[in-house]
Amino acid sequence: MIGHERFIAVDWGTTNRRAWRMGPDGAVEDVFEDDAGVAALPSGAYPSEVEKLRQRLGDLPMLLGGMVGSNRGWRDVPYVACPAAVADIAPAIVWMDERTGIVPGVCQNRADAPEVMRGEEVQIIGAMAAGGLPADGLVCLPGTHAKWVCLAGGRIESFATWMTGEVFALLGRHSILAPQIAGKAQSGSGFAAGVAQAQSGDPLGRLFRLRAGALLGTPIADGPSYASGLLIGAEVRAALASRQGDTPYLIGRPDLCDLYAAAIAQVQDRPFDAHRQIDGGLAFREGIRAVLKELA
Amino acid sequence: MIGHERFIAVDWGTTNRRAWRMGPDGAVEDVFEDDAGVAALPSGAYPSEVEKLRQRLGDLPMLLGGMVGSNRGWRDVPYVACPAAVADIAPAIVWMDERTGIVPGVCQNRADAPEVMRGEEVQIIGAMAAGGLPADGLVCLPGTHAKWVCLAGGRIESFATWMTGEVFALLGRHSILAPQIAGKAQSGSGFAAGVAQAQSGDPLGRLFRLRAGALLGTPIADGPSYASGLLIGAEVRAALASRQGDTPYLIGRPDLCDLYAAAIAQVQDRPFDAHRQIDGGLAFREGIRAVLKELA
Repeated sequence: MIGHERFIAVDWGTTNRRAWRMGPDGAVEDVFEDDAGVAALPSGAYPSEVEKLRQRLGDLPMLLGGMVGSNRGWRDVPYVACPAAVADIAPAIVWMDERTGIVPGVCQNRADAPEVMRGEEVQIIGAMAAGGLPADGLVCLPGTHAKWVCLAGGRIESFATWMTGEVFALLGRHSILAPQIAGKAQSGSGFAAGVAQAQSGDPLGRLFRLRAGALLGTPIADGPSYASGLLIGAEVRAALASRQGDTPYLIGRPDLCDLYAAAIAQVQDRPFDAHRQIDGGLAFREGIRAVLKELA
Repeated sequence: MIGHERFIAVDWGTTNRRAWRMGPDGAVEDVFEDDAGVAALPSGAYPSEVEKLRQRLGDLPMLLGGMVGSNRGWRDVPYVACPAAVADIAPAIVWMDERTGIVPGVCQNRADAPEVMRGEEVQIIGAMAAGGLPADGLVCLPGTHAKWVCLAGGRIESFATWMTGEVFALLGRHSILAPQIAGKAQSGSGFAAGVAQAQSGDPLGRLFRLRAGALLGTPIADGPSYASGLLIGAEVRAALASRQGDTPYLIGRPDLCDLYAAAIAQVQDRPFDAHRQIDGGLAFREGIRAVLKELA
């Protein structure tokens, strides 16, 4: 389909979407972002939404990744089973028309540990193609449902999901802790205190102290960051428990990756190398480019 | 005020209230329950609500416990600091009129581990007074915010709160797992599988498998019970981690105590003695009776 032409890459998630017009040299020529995620769209809306993106960014070939390929999106695109590399994923693209394709997600078909991802596989492919991520090792993609992925020989070998992000959001919106943890978490002393408390590996037994401290006039400082530190700290400890020597790479939103980097540095008691932190948008765009190259 | 007369005991929580008319011999003569918890009542509603309870159950002295004594209830009654026994709690009752009193909650004033309870202290006092709970040991009160309490010399010595119940409810109502965990958890093989998976001490890294299994056509059996087993299993493991030999007592709703008893038995690999399981309503009524005796 495409060799070194212009194209549009769309990261279409549950709550928002980001689209980039990419130049023949890999440069970002234009970008569009809004909150028309799959949760906000009726199932019949996709052809016209895609048309709108083309009106906005150019009448170009387009590859979509993320929840747009799920049973809640445009088309339920079958998963590619891991171990999976770009060479397995690219041929499994589902073409909605001859120049509009949806990249499949990846699944782990283990009865004792079933797992699925949609969108992260594109970021991993892109981070590897761009040279920032080695072919073997551990990579974490923070988010609503954080993924911890083992790479081997350039393939997604196995992975696991943590619901840390969603639980943190639920606690902030709907729980009795909402007054204490409303606001944005940031790395710093409050976050570090939460990560330290997470040493118990038991965040649900510590969170209530946020409320008790407030009631007793001894509030825990920077509640949002403390709660985030507790939850992310517990995740990082658990995910690294069996691979203590390994420092993971991080792909995602820079602010969220900063929190994970701080937690990993604290748990491993050594600085986190900033080169291991990869912007999620860059990784996605490069992933779509790598998939297109594979097809060329 | 009262010696061995009739009285009304009211367990007034966040989402509902239960009131009993108690006879001079300790027998329950009448009971009333509805969902007029403090979350459902405006702050000015209490005098007329109390009057309604008396019209229903009798024109008698009344002691109230639970969230009715909080800043979200009728009056913010100061906590009694632990270590606390009935002899510390009874004199601290706040009398709204000469025959309507609110029993104070108990707090743990430790800057590194602030904790509060309201209502559980009445149940603990009652379970001790009724002879089911020894003066020294460990007791767990499952619920929205489960309490694990160390007793020493008949006093509440120290305690910790787990948000297990609230997180389970949030996941069932608002999360992406709602389709998989809607319904009632029960002990059995699904619950036991969750408790077994909780050995990792890391429930937030396992829950997503409920969704992934469903998407991949290998659904985890009895999702509500599995999720409950994961969360309660992690709580029980963490709470017992530093006291492996100790078997806790349980006070609470029988269906919820059954789940905790099953998890404790599985974690400790021995049967849970049913005599250690105490009905929460009985414990509350007996607690109010013990407080009144202390005042007599």
